[in-house]
Amino acid sequence: MTLDFQLLARDGSARYGRLATPHGEIETPVFMPVGSLGAVKGVPAPALREAGAAIMLSNLYHLSLRPGIEVIEKLGGIHAFTGWSGPILTDSGGFQVFSLARLRRIDEDGVTFQNHVDGGEMRLTPESVVEAQRRLGVDIAMVLDECPPWPVSRADAEASLDRTQAWARRSRKAWSGAPAGLFGIVQGSVFPQLRRRAIEELAALDFPGYAIGGVSVGEPAEDRHQVVEWSAPELPEDKPRYLMGVGTPWDIAHAVAQGVDMFDCVIPSRNARHGQLFTRQGVLRIKNARFKDDPAPLDEGCECACCATSSRAFLHHLFRCREVTGPVLATAHNIRFYLDFVRDLREAIPSGSMAEKLRSVQSVYASSRAVEPSS
Amino acid sequence: MTLDFQLLARDGSARYGRLATPHGEIETPVFMPVGSLGAVKGVPAPALREAGAAIMLSNLYHLSLRPGIEVIEKLGGIHAFTGWSGPILTDSGGFQVFSLARLRRIDEDGVTFQNHVDGGEMRLTPESVVEAQRRLGVDIAMVLDECPPWPVSRADAEASLDRTQAWARRSRKAWSGAPAGLFGIVQGSVFPQLRRRAIEELAALDFPGYAIGGVSVGEPAEDRHQVVEWSAPELPEDKPRYLMGVGTPWDIAHAVAQGVDMFDCVIPSRNARHGQLFTRQGVLRIKNARFKDDPAPLDEGCECACCATSSRAFLHHLFRCREVTGPVLATAHNIRFYLDFVRDLREAIPSGSMAEKLRSVQSVYASSRAVEPSS
Repeated sequence: MTLDFQLLARDGSARYGRLATPHGEIETPVFMPVGSLGAVKGVPAPALREAGAAIMLSNLYHLSLRPGIEVIEKLGGIHAFTGWSGPILTDSGGFQVFSLARLRRIDEDGVTFQNHVDGGEMRLTPESVVEAQRRLGVDIAMVLDECPPWPVSRADAEASLDRTQAWARRSRKAWSGAPAGLFGIVQGSVFPQLRRRAIEELAALDFPGYAIGGVSVGEPAEDRHQVVEWSAPELPEDKPRYLMGVGTPWDIAHAVAQGVDMFDCVIPSRNARHGQLFTRQGVLRIKNARFKDDPAPLDEGCECACCATSSRAFLHHLFRCREVTGPVLATAHNIRFYLDFVRDLREAIPSGSMAEKLRSVQSVYASSRAVEPSS
Repeated sequence: MTLDFQLLARDGSARYGRLATPHGEIETPVFMPVGSLGAVKGVPAPALREAGAAIMLSNLYHLSLRPGIEVIEKLGGIHAFTGWSGPILTDSGGFQVFSLARLRRIDEDGVTFQNHVDGGEMRLTPESVVEAQRRLGVDIAMVLDECPPWPVSRADAEASLDRTQAWARRSRKAWSGAPAGLFGIVQGSVFPQLRRRAIEELAALDFPGYAIGGVSVGEPAEDRHQVVEWSAPELPEDKPRYLMGVGTPWDIAHAVAQGVDMFDCVIPSRNARHGQLFTRQGVLRIKNARFKDDPAPLDEGCECACCATSSRAFLHHLFRCREVTGPVLATAHNIRFYLDFVRDLREAIPSGSMAEKLRSVQSVYASSRAVEPSS
């Protein structure tokens, strides 16, 4: 089988749907926690399931480096290897090649680079990336794309897009007959005509799903939102739409309202490690001295194990002492927050309350200072 | 109430019992996971409960430094603060003062030192330690003792013991009427006459329980075992006996056979962080290359979440990539192993199979190289 996507309800442009994959069904909009190396940092697979995750994201570039595709294949594929039995989407590594690797040489056929772990030379081509994801046994694979930096000139963006589109055609051909789904990736930076061209050409290739890529590369939120507003309505109605690497709660709510169905982002896990905790009332910086003797749970409305047993004062204490249990509790909480948050957005669609929901998210999370980037 | 201890069965010198505390009953022999700062590193309270822990150990010295007794008292005591609702035993800090702190000055009245966090001056007296544990609301408190290094001369050990015994008398008086239990601590290093004298004097003070201290300070296992063999049979029959900071599975099995009831040790958690994993077949050093493509679970006989979902190959991968999920899974597993291990010893007592159990533990774990110290 390939993927089966059904749209079940709409509210404005927002869509409520169901995506069937070889390892189970997902209700959309959906948030995919990031386990680049096969596990969300500090949240083992059983805890991830318990938090309500329906699908995990992993990363071909990272897994190719360590432990290597061959090892995972020998162990029975990515589900057996990671212990995550639900659906898995892998990113192709395009983003990582352009953000982590060094000494890149791009040619028409693919990209050669030094990896960020031991500096060894690696080469990715559209066909090798498709083949590797097939060997991993993922439910949703992504094509190899070129992810230009921000800002980039229109000429450079266009040259890059030419390559990405050629690679997409080769990827589609190479994937043909595979037992899962391959998504095309829309590039084109902040140039609406390039984005439109990318969408038209990719739609003609009839991918099982489409991603909006090339965002979350340092651009202002307004630019990111504009890209979503141009792109989402143009994408094929009957296929899932995935916004890559986005974002804050406000970014996600905005994109859901524009008709995006799938999200992944490291913000909940990365920011948790730095003590930036999401609540229904906004972000708490738990290391702040004012939490030293605060007996309240992190988030009154949350049912995670952290909120059930730990006060803000206890979390503050663990973070101040650099005890690993602090980040462990905080990451589990933030992941749960994101999953609950997107579930609430999803439930707003059939009930027709998306506009109201959007306003309430905006009032709490739209300030540019509400969520600070953590590194 | 104070503590209520009932002996329910014996097998040789080994004892199966039940200890009632203000926060619940404990079956003994029991292993107490170590959460010095209020949480076992990487294992939040709900996961600790799920692993089968009945009582948690914490530490007065560490908690006095951060966040401070006043904060914990204000937040409703140590159970409310840590989110661990079961029984809690706190060590007095005597061991930490002599292992972590700097520039100690001991006088008859107490000990003054620079703490290991910010170098600030702190002072502990027998009365202040008892009072602080009372304010924390612990179920079992420990007296302030002086923990001599190993090796130590007999003259120095005796002078130190004089002080520890004087402090024990003052502690007993200060604790009188408290709503939980205070344990006396037997010192005397590796000198049997000093150990015997300590036991006689402490027994006369009628503590609710007795600890064997001054071990796990670098001495060879044979010396440690000798101290247990001299001390355990001399301790009052009708009170729980706690061997502090011990040890390997073989140390624990040996001590249970000598009639010890309670244990704490950082070995399962600390060694887990270094990839040293306990199994029913012995210790695995998971970073070893031979586990790179081993599809077996860590320990076939274990029912923990780690063993249910993670192969040795996956754990190897996480450790090699320094992913925090590796230590998190490993620590949960090792804690579960120790809890299961001591439960199996406990169950061997009423069934009369302690000797057989002891032989099987010895064959797997008695080699001095079976468990390497991790730092």
